Amino acid sequence: MGTRPATSLLIRIDPRARETLQQQIYAGIRRAVLEGLVTPRTRLPSSRALAEDLRVSRTTSLLAVEQLRAEGYLTARRGSGTFVADLLPDDHPQAGSARVAPKPIHPPLSRRGAALVAARQGARRLPGPPRPFRIGTPGVDLFPVRLWSRLASRRLRAVTSAQLDYGDPAGLRVLREAIAKHVETARGTRCAADQVLMVAGAQQGLDLICRLLLDPGDRVWMEEPGYPGARSALLGAGARILPVRVDVEAGVRSAGNVRLVYVTPSHQYPLGVPMSLPRRLTLLKWAAAARAWVVEDDYDSEFRYGARPIPCLHGLDIDGRVIYVGSFSKTLFPGLRLGFLIVPPDLQDRVVAARSAADQHPPSLDQAVLADFIVEGHFARHLRRMRAAYRERLESLAAAAERFCRGRLRLRPVQAGLHAVADLDGVDAVRVSREAATRGVEATPLSAYFVGRSRGANSLVLGFGAVRPEAASRGMERLAAAIEAARRL
Amino acid sequence: MGTRPATSLLIRIDPRARETLQQQIYAGIRRAVLEGLVTPRTRLPSSRALAEDLRVSRTTSLLAVEQLRAEGYLTARRGSGTFVADLLPDDHPQAGSARVAPKPIHPPLSRRGAALVAARQGARRLPGPPRPFRIGTPGVDLFPVRLWSRLASRRLRAVTSAQLDYGDPAGLRVLREAIAKHVETARGTRCAADQVLMVAGAQQGLDLICRLLLDPGDRVWMEEPGYPGARSALLGAGARILPVRVDVEAGVRSAGNVRLVYVTPSHQYPLGVPMSLPRRLTLLKWAAAARAWVVEDDYDSEFRYGARPIPCLHGLDIDGRVIYVGSFSKTLFPGLRLGFLIVPPDLQDRVVAARSAADQHPPSLDQAVLADFIVEGHFARHLRRMRAAYRERLESLAAAAERFCRGRLRLRPVQAGLHAVADLDGVDAVRVSREAATRGVEATPLSAYFVGRSRGANSLVLGFGAVRPEAASRGMERLAAAIEAARRL
Repeated sequence: MGTRPATSLLIRIDPRARETLQQQIYAGIRRAVLEGLVTPRTRLPSSRALAEDLRVSRTTSLLAVEQLRAEGYLTARRGSGTFVADLLPDDHPQAGSARVAPKPIHPPLSRRGAALVAARQGARRLPGPPRPFRIGTPGVDLFPVRLWSRLASRRLRAVTSAQLDYGDPAGLRVLREAIAKHVETARGTRCAADQVLMVAGAQQGLDLICRLLLDPGDRVWMEEPGYPGARSALLGAGARILPVRVDVEAGVRSAGNVRLVYVTPSHQYPLGVPMSLPRRLTLLKWAAAARAWVVEDDYDSEFRYGARPIPCLHGLDIDGRVIYVGSFSKTLFPGLRLGFLIVPPDLQDRVVAARSAADQHPPSLDQAVLADFIVEGHFARHLRRMRAAYRERLESLAAAAERFCRGRLRLRPVQAGLHAVADLDGVDAVRVSREAATRGVEATPLSAYFVGRSRGANSLVLGFGAVRPEAASRGMERLAAAIEAARRL
Repeated sequence: MGTRPATSLLIRIDPRARETLQQQIYAGIRRAVLEGLVTPRTRLPSSRALAEDLRVSRTTSLLAVEQLRAEGYLTARRGSGTFVADLLPDDHPQAGSARVAPKPIHPPLSRRGAALVAARQGARRLPGPPRPFRIGTPGVDLFPVRLWSRLASRRLRAVTSAQLDYGDPAGLRVLREAIAKHVETARGTRCAADQVLMVAGAQQGLDLICRLLLDPGDRVWMEEPGYPGARSALLGAGARILPVRVDVEAGVRSAGNVRLVYVTPSHQYPLGVPMSLPRRLTLLKWAAAARAWVVEDDYDSEFRYGARPIPCLHGLDIDGRVIYVGSFSKTLFPGLRLGFLIVPPDLQDRVVAARSAADQHPPSLDQAVLADFIVEGHFARHLRRMRAAYRERLESLAAAAERFCRGRLRLRPVQAGLHAVADLDGVDAVRVSREAATRGVEATPLSAYFVGRSRGANSLVLGFGAVRPEAASRGMERLAAAIEAARRL
């Protein structure tokens, strides 16, 4: 075989198997090597090619290959790739100490580094332009880029030396004031501008909170199913996640010695249900008694369809233990990378110090443009316009589901946000998801959002924020075909 | 005294004392309380006011106050401030177990969080527009804002939905390619665009590297004196810093079991000397034998005045263990918050995964504008123009020093970068720095950059990048007055 790349057809992946994807790839390659299906010195496909072929994340394929390298089945040659080792470790089963492992050139990652890298495995994002029914992408096609551009030009023309210099690690004062005012009217909570800290998106906010408040091994209560980005931040900080079904009473009973609770009360991610007022009060009372921090991720609560808003947890908190995480990724556009935290007063200076040590401060000009956008009323107008657009997109989604998938796919009622949960009947959601992917449709199985076993969750999560009516119709037609194909498998 | 704020005149701070500033503030307030100089229920100034009065960082004042609160000397009332406690802990010296400490409402910070917050104490930055002779601020007054604005508008007009959506955590491909090309011609190193990873400024790059590669307690070799931002990142990761005088041979002899070396070989921060070629090779050879990572911070090497450039360490590295940290804060403007890492190929995917878990990706539009700026040749032109401007500013600084401070201040030769080291004779640099501050002049004592004792370093570090010729003259006149005042103290 020489240096011809080995094909990845040797490996079969089953997303529903008990083993992780990484374990399956590891076992598949090892078997192929041991059984002589690939001979010594055969070049392996790159981890990128492997990941693409197998439809797994690069990290997954990379970690599997690294394990095989560490164990001596594969060797790496700088600049030319990874090869099947000349001398396999299993050739000398009796010579335990003389094991043929390639000498690692570099020291390994730190424990926290390995945790951080591994944490990211769960959260995959497909490249390319948004396809139906991608989750997390808002209706960027409707973003007023000309207006934004005009505000940006005006700011740049009037820029001062101080604005180009290093800025306040807490963020631009005028922006923090505008946000404090906005959350008071829109989210039913009051805070001083001092408590609002700008971050490079909600993910940085979560990462910062986890680093600052959690020691490795600390127990954390996280919703099950839940948001993979939060899970990454928690695992990256070495936290032990206690997955709690979306049921505050059960959480309170089982939580025990928990240091932090992560919740999405306005619109549970990904189920979409809001947390009731009595449950909110129960959670806060419990947190006060348990002396736990409560992280409230309010990621897309601005978009509601009819239901009366409940004040956010932060607005009900009289005890200063709720940390509110806000994002502009859904309300404006994700590429902006701006979000904010609202922290209790006694945490304020410490979060700012940590943030400053981590990456100084957010980009000054982007903050200035955003401040103008809010202060001049464009933000409120944009939200109103998008609320109407999203309602229309939701209706298109429902109509398309009714037309193409009647009886096979049932949308659960959507009260808020940019995605819907759809239950399947008699056909496996993971299979449907894979069939849909081959047809250019993103339909994420609900089970992907579970840390533990996803008992009985045979559903898909469908984003509609970035899906225009005509695309919803085309996408749903293909999803119907995917369901048919999965049923025949 | 009622609730009239206590004045901070009760506390005397001596920056040269053996105790830290925090310890001095703690001791000062405690003494005032115990001696009855401030009575129970007296309201303390806010930590911000305290910090301003005492000219220390807010974190310093905050931590001192928090310690006093934890020990029961002070109490906090939500929303109204911090007060001298009714019942002092020392009122009951015999009742050890019944100690009157206010019940802490919140759990403490994590160990790493406390390290991160404490790490930032060393690195203070004065607010307000750049004053002479601030360090770290480039000549933002000469930045071509109109050109930048034009590029930004053009990008925004042509923006696609995919560009507004979430982006690649490694950064924009076209920008990474442009940077790979630039470092090849400008810095004498070659790398694939895949190895270039965009970060939100050099500080984020350092923080990411430290998290990924260092476990708490790992030993790290850092230059002494050295860059406070790097020190923050290292301490924030829990590393044990081994300060090594700028002398590779001494480092190699004393380093021992070190996992990572942080160096600024092109232009040592803050001394300004370049590392010689033989020393570079010695360092790399040692690092290969010690299996240590080498972090090369190339923060302002683009600006050289005459001396022939030496290839950067990354360009001499045949072993894949140098991590290059690049920044646009000096070459463009700090408020942009963009920098990059060049990492060895086997680290690439893991840094990207960690970065994605930490904060997703850098802002898309800023990256796109920067890419255009480089690709269209504006960056190279801007560097040429700034090199000439900085040479002129350096000459103005030297002329002003000669005119106003002759015999009292001796500038060391400057071969590169945006700051100069100036030696003082017969007058203490810390005193001069304090006197200068009262005159609106920033003159940082060299001793501020030492981790250990700064034996014999009686010098000032003076930035000239942001100081126009006329401002240099005025600033130097005031600095001369500060030297006179410090001499008379």
